[in-house]
Amino acid sequence: MVESLQRRLPQKVSTAPADLETHGRDEGYPAHHPPIAVVYAEGLEDIQATLAWAREHRIPVVPFGAGTSIEGHVIPQGPALSLDLSRMNRVLEVRPEDFLAVVEPGVTRKTLNEALKGTGLFFPVDPGADASLGGMAATNASGTTTVRYGGMRQNVLALQVVLANGEVLELGRGVRKTSAGYDLKDLFIGSEGTLGIITRLTLKLHPIPEHIHTLRVFFENLTDTAQAAYAVMASGLPVARLELVDEIGIKAINRYLGRNYPEKPVLFLEFHSSTRAALEAESRLALELMQEAGAISIDAAHTQEERTAQWEARHQSYWALVNLFPGKEYLSTDTAVPISKMPDLVTYSNRLLRELGLTGNILGHVGDGNFHTLVVCEPGDPRAEEFSLRLVEHTLALGGTCTGEHGVGLRKKKYLPKEHGPALAWMRQIKQLFDPHNLLNPGKIFD
Amino acid sequence: MVESLQRRLPQKVSTAPADLETHGRDEGYPAHHPPIAVVYAEGLEDIQATLAWAREHRIPVVPFGAGTSIEGHVIPQGPALSLDLSRMNRVLEVRPEDFLAVVEPGVTRKTLNEALKGTGLFFPVDPGADASLGGMAATNASGTTTVRYGGMRQNVLALQVVLANGEVLELGRGVRKTSAGYDLKDLFIGSEGTLGIITRLTLKLHPIPEHIHTLRVFFENLTDTAQAAYAVMASGLPVARLELVDEIGIKAINRYLGRNYPEKPVLFLEFHSSTRAALEAESRLALELMQEAGAISIDAAHTQEERTAQWEARHQSYWALVNLFPGKEYLSTDTAVPISKMPDLVTYSNRLLRELGLTGNILGHVGDGNFHTLVVCEPGDPRAEEFSLRLVEHTLALGGTCTGEHGVGLRKKKYLPKEHGPALAWMRQIKQLFDPHNLLNPGKIFD
Ligand SMILES: Cc1cc2nc3c(=O)[nH]c(=O)nc-3n(C[C@H](O)[C@H](O)[C@H](O)COP(=O)(O)OP(=O)(O)OC[C@H]3O[C@@H](n4cnc5c(N)ncnc54)[C@H](O)[C@@H]3O)c2cc1C
Ligand SMILES: Cc1cc2nc3c(=O)[nH]c(=O)nc-3n(C[C@H](O)[C@H](O)[C@H](O)COP(=O)(O)OP(=O)(O)OC[C@H]3O[C@@H](n4cnc5c(N)ncnc54)[C@H](O)[C@@H]3O)c2cc1C
Repeated sequence: MVESLQRRLPQKVSTAPADLETHGRDEGYPAHHPPIAVVYAEGLEDIQATLAWAREHRIPVVPFGAGTSIEGHVIPQGPALSLDLSRMNRVLEVRPEDFLAVVEPGVTRKTLNEALKGTGLFFPVDPGADASLGGMAATNASGTTTVRYGGMRQNVLALQVVLANGEVLELGRGVRKTSAGYDLKDLFIGSEGTLGIITRLTLKLHPIPEHIHTLRVFFENLTDTAQAAYAVMASGLPVARLELVDEIGIKAINRYLGRNYPEKPVLFLEFHSSTRAALEAESRLALELMQEAGAISIDAAHTQEERTAQWEARHQSYWALVNLFPGKEYLSTDTAVPISKMPDLVTYSNRLLRELGLTGNILGHVGDGNFHTLVVCEPGDPRAEEFSLRLVEHTLALGGTCTGEHGVGLRKKKYLPKEHGPALAWMRQIKQLFDPHNLLNPGKIFD
Repeated sequence: MVESLQRRLPQKVSTAPADLETHGRDEGYPAHHPPIAVVYAEGLEDIQATLAWAREHRIPVVPFGAGTSIEGHVIPQGPALSLDLSRMNRVLEVRPEDFLAVVEPGVTRKTLNEALKGTGLFFPVDPGADASLGGMAATNASGTTTVRYGGMRQNVLALQVVLANGEVLELGRGVRKTSAGYDLKDLFIGSEGTLGIITRLTLKLHPIPEHIHTLRVFFENLTDTAQAAYAVMASGLPVARLELVDEIGIKAINRYLGRNYPEKPVLFLEFHSSTRAALEAESRLALELMQEAGAISIDAAHTQEERTAQWEARHQSYWALVNLFPGKEYLSTDTAVPISKMPDLVTYSNRLLRELGLTGNILGHVGDGNFHTLVVCEPGDPRAEEFSLRLVEHTLALGGTCTGEHGVGLRKKKYLPKEHGPALAWMRQIKQLFDPHNLLNPGKIFD
């Protein structure tokens, strides 16, 4: 059957076992289901041809960016094509004068920032992996700088998308604001490949701050650390990064990257300013706050290299932990709560791990009230799911969300009825409207 | 017919001529069409009862906040009920620890800020009128501080809405970020009462800046002024307000408010900082930039009173102009373009006014690339519409939008096919999905 598609798209459709294998799994979900073929699209027409074939044969299509998602997002739920967008990797336009760039969906965040060198601008959203910008928009990703610069939703001004029926839509405009009708752009951000294929993104760029101050602040215990993070947020200081890593996380980083950080729970902080005076004033306030909050040791990164090393450590912390416990299975939660509730939830999560006798690690974007608990267990251990369920229930009771940034995929579907109530049925109806034959990434977000 | 509704909602349904009169017009659109009755809802049940009646009788419902919109948004297009939300005016919850407040839709922005006194926090979105927060969300309003704090979309975390069928949905969560399914909250923001009634809003609050610096910078001509505004944006300075008022605008303000500002085009600027040092550094940079850009005179506001007076002047500038030309008709454009294109569009607009022999005034939120040209003419003068059409076409060619903040209402419907292309048909389908009998504010956004 796939031969007819191969004839339409010569050199672009692979059924090589290695391709099927890598497109049947992601970086975190413990399941594997290869697609029947992988299409390497090189442009709009390839995508339209793939969708036409999919409509004819009623075979679903699963968009695939860099495959770094961790909730089962890209794993086919039955016979399906994987639509790989990595060859659509051109930076189409950089307009520093308007603080924006236009890219194809397969460009990764690191590639974009390379392309911006010399402009004085950067694209801030930085999930731990070098994800594709299309995939990041599709999951509404965020990262360590989101506390200051916002996540994908705030930094994607416009999208081009291809619908299941092959139509091409332009959503949003490259402007700072608009009130011209319904906001379809934001409907597609976070839609996880279930409403359409993102084929072009207009992104907001930011000036590289002239003055940067980076700190590591260590505390005696996890609760103190979380409370100190909240104190920074409560002070209204314009912090640019505010990340928590627990003791196990630091140990794992030391081992994996050969660092010698004190093995205590830590906050990684950064301040960005346009003037040195502003930076100094802000850093001074931050130091005072950290001391009041019970810091036991404070290090500053003094050079660009030290700073890069610190954030590298943060970005590698997932792999560091995985490396510490080889052969295990991992479940990462992604709860976010109103910020004053974050210390409560951190403490709750830590206690729940112990109560269930689980090993795990707590880390994340605490300035946004969002953190991950990475539960390490034997494959199939039911306690991991129990942990996740109880944590999410507590989160929802605190007014929070089951996923701050990773998205729903397969694993978080079960939490949506409680989080959204009757609104979930309307989401389904929107899915039905845009994709009546359920051809786009079926089985994700909804059952 | 209305009697049956009056029986269901005693004391809440008015057919008094004065009520019908004020609910049949807005603050800018030159038409008047009174509703058949005004319902003053006091809670969810009243809204549900009104919608049930509307479904039974197939009589549309037009939500009404403060009635300060200017594109014909609240004007019925046939027999309809006006659903006035001004009695739903309770601030339900203020949670300074989470930087958020929960309000009913009839609370106005000024009332909310009064309620926040003593918390050290404020709600930033400030359209020129004292609009209701429900109406502001429904139009995706913004204001003078949007360049720094964002408009309604960025500052509404969650909504409760009632659909045409009476269902109550909770959209979004009171958290800084979420990736849990489709973003229906942002679909309702800017939907102008056509998808549902907003009955509760969870809003983001911001710390009142400790240090504020407010400037008025006068230039010889309009093009210099616009270019200076762009220079501020291009510098990456974290400006908190950046407003342009042209010479006629300043004359009107002097006359209307008894001020004695130099009668030259001006930028009103403000900087907000958490430290004095930061403020001083930023202000110094701004002053240098303004001098380089050809400023002919610079005044600073030194006290809170002076600052209030300056922003009062800006907020009153619409009424000041109307007062300068009594008995005329006004058409306000609302174009927004990528910021580097803003000086071009300001110059174009000024030239077009002269070319068409029209009187008009240019002012607005130039830091967001958004400004208004207020065209003053005799009732029915076709040149006003011609002006608007040509300006919008030039705007769209520059990558801009026909409305940065006022919304579509009646007047901008004609520009949407060009701005959105095939996406407009999908907006209609979403309207059809949520409101199959076209009962909610019909004739707005779409024909
Ligand atoms: C070590 C590690 C750290 C991480 N840290 C973070 C973090 O800090 N923050 C965060 O948000 N996430 C994080 N993630 C998760 C992941 O990186 C993000 O979800 C990322 O956005 C996925 O992008 P991708 O290109 O890999 O997308 P994929 O994994 O390829 O796809 C993700 C989803 O998007 C869809 N999709 C992909 N491309 C398109 C397209 N062009 N059009 C339509 N749909 C498309 C897919 O169908 C799928 O549903 C981390 C993952 C790892 C492994
Ligand atoms: C002098 C002046 C200056 C202005 N300056 C600005 C400015 O700087 N920025 C800006 O954005 N706007 C500005 N405006 C326009 C206006 O103030 C805004 O559009 C404002 O958001 C309207 O709010 P409202 O409460 O008056 O809404 P209304 O005029 O009552 O209604 C506006 C629309 O929202 C709908 N609506 C109202 N309440 C609800 C609800 N609870 N649920 C669902 N739909 C609802 C209505 O049906 C209508 O379609 C200005 C207007 C004037 C007169």
